[in-house]
Amino acid sequence: MSCARITVTLPYRSAKTSIQRGITHYPALIRPRFSACTPLASAMPLSSTPLINGDNSQRKNTRQHMEESSSKRREYLLEETTRKLQRNDTESVEKLKLIDNIQQLGIGYYFEDAINAVLRSPFSTGEEDLFTAALRFRLLRHNGIEISPEIFLKFKDERGKFDESDTLGLLSLYEASNLGVAGEEILEEAMEFAEARLRRSLSEPAAPLHGEVAQALDVPRHLRMARLEARRFIEQYGKQSDHDGDLLELAILDYNQVQAQHQSELTEIIRWWKELGLVDKLSFGRDRPLECFLWTVGLLPEPKYSSVRIELAKAISILLVIDDIFDTYGEMDDLILFTDAIRRWDLEAMEGLPEYMKICYMALYNTTNEVCYKVLRDTGRIVLLNLKSTWIDMIEGFMEEAKWFNGGSAPKLEEYIENGVSTAGAYMAFAHIFFLIGEGVTHQNSQLFTQKPYPKVFSAAGRILRLWDDLGTAKEEQERGDLASCVQLFMKEKSLTEEEARSRILEEIKGLWRDLNGELVYNKNLPLSIIKVALNMARASQVVYKHDQDTYFSSVDNYVDALFFTQ
Amino acid sequence: MSCARITVTLPYRSAKTSIQRGITHYPALIRPRFSACTPLASAMPLSSTPLINGDNSQRKNTRQHMEESSSKRREYLLEETTRKLQRNDTESVEKLKLIDNIQQLGIGYYFEDAINAVLRSPFSTGEEDLFTAALRFRLLRHNGIEISPEIFLKFKDERGKFDESDTLGLLSLYEASNLGVAGEEILEEAMEFAEARLRRSLSEPAAPLHGEVAQALDVPRHLRMARLEARRFIEQYGKQSDHDGDLLELAILDYNQVQAQHQSELTEIIRWWKELGLVDKLSFGRDRPLECFLWTVGLLPEPKYSSVRIELAKAISILLVIDDIFDTYGEMDDLILFTDAIRRWDLEAMEGLPEYMKICYMALYNTTNEVCYKVLRDTGRIVLLNLKSTWIDMIEGFMEEAKWFNGGSAPKLEEYIENGVSTAGAYMAFAHIFFLIGEGVTHQNSQLFTQKPYPKVFSAAGRILRLWDDLGTAKEEQERGDLASCVQLFMKEKSLTEEEARSRILEEIKGLWRDLNGELVYNKNLPLSIIKVALNMARASQVVYKHDQDTYFSSVDNYVDALFFTQ
Repeated sequence: MSCARITVTLPYRSAKTSIQRGITHYPALIRPRFSACTPLASAMPLSSTPLINGDNSQRKNTRQHMEESSSKRREYLLEETTRKLQRNDTESVEKLKLIDNIQQLGIGYYFEDAINAVLRSPFSTGEEDLFTAALRFRLLRHNGIEISPEIFLKFKDERGKFDESDTLGLLSLYEASNLGVAGEEILEEAMEFAEARLRRSLSEPAAPLHGEVAQALDVPRHLRMARLEARRFIEQYGKQSDHDGDLLELAILDYNQVQAQHQSELTEIIRWWKELGLVDKLSFGRDRPLECFLWTVGLLPEPKYSSVRIELAKAISILLVIDDIFDTYGEMDDLILFTDAIRRWDLEAMEGLPEYMKICYMALYNTTNEVCYKVLRDTGRIVLLNLKSTWIDMIEGFMEEAKWFNGGSAPKLEEYIENGVSTAGAYMAFAHIFFLIGEGVTHQNSQLFTQKPYPKVFSAAGRILRLWDDLGTAKEEQERGDLASCVQLFMKEKSLTEEEARSRILEEIKGLWRDLNGELVYNKNLPLSIIKVALNMARASQVVYKHDQDTYFSSVDNYVDALFFTQ
Repeated sequence: MSCARITVTLPYRSAKTSIQRGITHYPALIRPRFSACTPLASAMPLSSTPLINGDNSQRKNTRQHMEESSSKRREYLLEETTRKLQRNDTESVEKLKLIDNIQQLGIGYYFEDAINAVLRSPFSTGEEDLFTAALRFRLLRHNGIEISPEIFLKFKDERGKFDESDTLGLLSLYEASNLGVAGEEILEEAMEFAEARLRRSLSEPAAPLHGEVAQALDVPRHLRMARLEARRFIEQYGKQSDHDGDLLELAILDYNQVQAQHQSELTEIIRWWKELGLVDKLSFGRDRPLECFLWTVGLLPEPKYSSVRIELAKAISILLVIDDIFDTYGEMDDLILFTDAIRRWDLEAMEGLPEYMKICYMALYNTTNEVCYKVLRDTGRIVLLNLKSTWIDMIEGFMEEAKWFNGGSAPKLEEYIENGVSTAGAYMAFAHIFFLIGEGVTHQNSQLFTQKPYPKVFSAAGRILRLWDDLGTAKEEQERGDLASCVQLFMKEKSLTEEEARSRILEEIKGLWRDLNGELVYNKNLPLSIIKVALNMARASQVVYKHDQDTYFSSVDNYVDALFFTQ
């Protein structure tokens, strides 16, 4: 989450200018995504301009009436969909497809119990075709339920090779293979087998499911950011001739409502950021609250985590400015003073700091204490020690990087990546989210944030974040004269070309995903909610940093506009 | 500012119930005070329902047009009034009357320089009548400008007695006499002389200036709360046949605009208070953010002090809950733990506290650090030590009171009053205001808050606050079985009846006002802005606690409604 920046840097330690390209304008929040193009007349846009005129009280009644009727309508659609999930006379493949659509449309959180009941009900794979078996495998694992990959053995011939199948079956198998865990060779074979055939099928434009195949090969379902996928799939699903009209209408009502909620969260964050005035004082610091909020929507798509998103966006906004102090502005002696003061975590430690560091120190101190207050208020727990140790760990990581880049010896690849997980803010984010959500917190698992090594689920997601960060911003960082990014260190340590180094990193990321898939199904020490956040961190990293032809900034701007401002 | 509460208390240290009568409903903020009864059609209400219908964009343009035309109108009226102040061909008594009207209408802050220029310009009292001389004396002193009371010698006969005068002159003399300083006997004589004759004049209902005389004898001009007086005088001035139409229109435009600003400040405070959730957790604590905001409007009527009011209202809101912990809920052992933890001013000190104290401790800690952040951001000063020492001093004062009321020996009157100034929150308020305003702050005067005795200007105002608090809430406190209030201690120590004790306290307050008047004119160590706050504290205390027939709560509710919600 270190949100790359384009910085024209004169000699490293002299005056720096930072050409901040970022969304510093906060466009007035405008109408919901699906009001214009919604095929169904009944899907009234929640917050669009009322169609009926009249004086103020009339308009107020009309708006109230519209809100009442749409919330009644929503209640009806929720009950209807729950009924469909609970019916006993539906073919199991139809129920699995219903669950898949519900979750892809972004409305799974309404039906968690009903979905779990279906997925955990006994099943026999005897008669199931490849499409259904692979769909079941993916849905169970995606929802943290154990299922053995042996269900795919029956789709192999006697030589142990996968039988040929239609595109639908191959696509389902490929999507399922992305939930493999380290050591499950059958799923690695399945991925190779399905991917080769799907790529071949793309050469015929008229091939069935051409769009879905291309989409899956670009970013598999399991790796997509939930909120962006819901937005994309609502449009795709609406065009499917066999789509369930009620389901689509519910998805649109929900999408608009959640977007409105995101807009009010964003308003609060921008109010807080402007009041903080940190980048008014430290003009070299990044002014990116919208991008920070994008991260939180990626990590925590569920509407119920509203205040968690707001508090986390604040922490990430301050993290960027501290990162800029270390990377582009602070003199080494100041950075040492700042790191020592952070270790003390005491406002009296501020006295010895240079002016520009004082306000940043106090912003961090107060904002972290505010999170601690909210956790105390909502759960009765005192978590200052847990939160501040992740900040201390991160800032010590920045100090390490400053030494490396300021004439010190270049780090080893592994040393750089491990340190880079802390400086990317991964552990700070997990600690904040874990305690703000407050589910399944015990004295024992609370200690996970005050000792190293951090749990595998956090380090795997954090490494994916660091690797994607470097892949996505290596060009810009190199222009800045930064020695280290894992692309350069891979090239140097493994004698690879840049292209080879980038492929190796993508392979590393694939391997780390298998670790995450294992944690999703087998980690019983941590609540499912925080494990899902880890997978969402990996998903958000890919979205934010994988920007092919776009620049880093334009791709982030597009996502922010698409999700929150809806052109 | 201890905002009395009605509490039915079972035996002191057992379970307590607190019947919270207070404005816990926050009525939707409604239209401005003067839209309906404004005689002048041109004084368009700023925020009332637009008279012109039309669709959204039309209404938006209409509102924009109205706002532009009213601000142009306001600019014109400001220029016109400045011109009137700067004209050289106006009789000096007319200029003095113009200044008096401007300040009484609550719009003095626009014309501070022009007013000062007039008041500081040379003058000869030779020809001036009693009315004019007394008006000049009052205006100069009210604005912190030195003027000797010897100007009144020429209104005495050879026996040293004041000459008889008309009601206008007597009223002007009486108002001026309220700005006397200790030792200025001529003003004490003037007060006695004028008051006796004005009281006599009230017996004839048809007497000239009957209303103004009654008003002055109830609360002299110098002791009235600026914002309430502006509200009252705008109506009175509008009925005067010779009123200046432009001045009235400007006062109404300004009153509505400032009221709208107060409503948005109130919205922010209530948002913060609800988010803090302190009284959701500590249901015994007072839930009085509106009353706390009323105090801040009393202390700081000028619109420019918006963020100071907001931060101070937060601090007072928390003060009330801490007061309730000491007064009605906390066990002695807990109170000792809490006081020790406050002395340490360290979140780690929270660990040893009982649950209900932890959240209050952290709310105080974070809220105070937030004020420090804002001072650092806006002025570059670190003031944590200064602010926290006033909180420590206050909470040690609560601890002292707890010992007295919990079976300890009753305090001496002076001991009680001095301690009572701290526990009333006076010094805490001055420290917050002084550093948040940030005018005239030096290293030297910053130390005034970390050492005792506190400056006379603060202790005089604080003693008036404590004395009025006890006068206004003694009945309720007695019902609670509280031993000490200065009414009881006066009765006990000076063997007085309750009525005699109350009169002695009112005399004490008069004496303290003379001290304040001295500070207003002669204190050159502190900026005029903070000295004016001290006088405003004394004014607000009288308004809040002097409630004759009403109860304490109904009178506060009326002021809050009148100032912010405009029935």
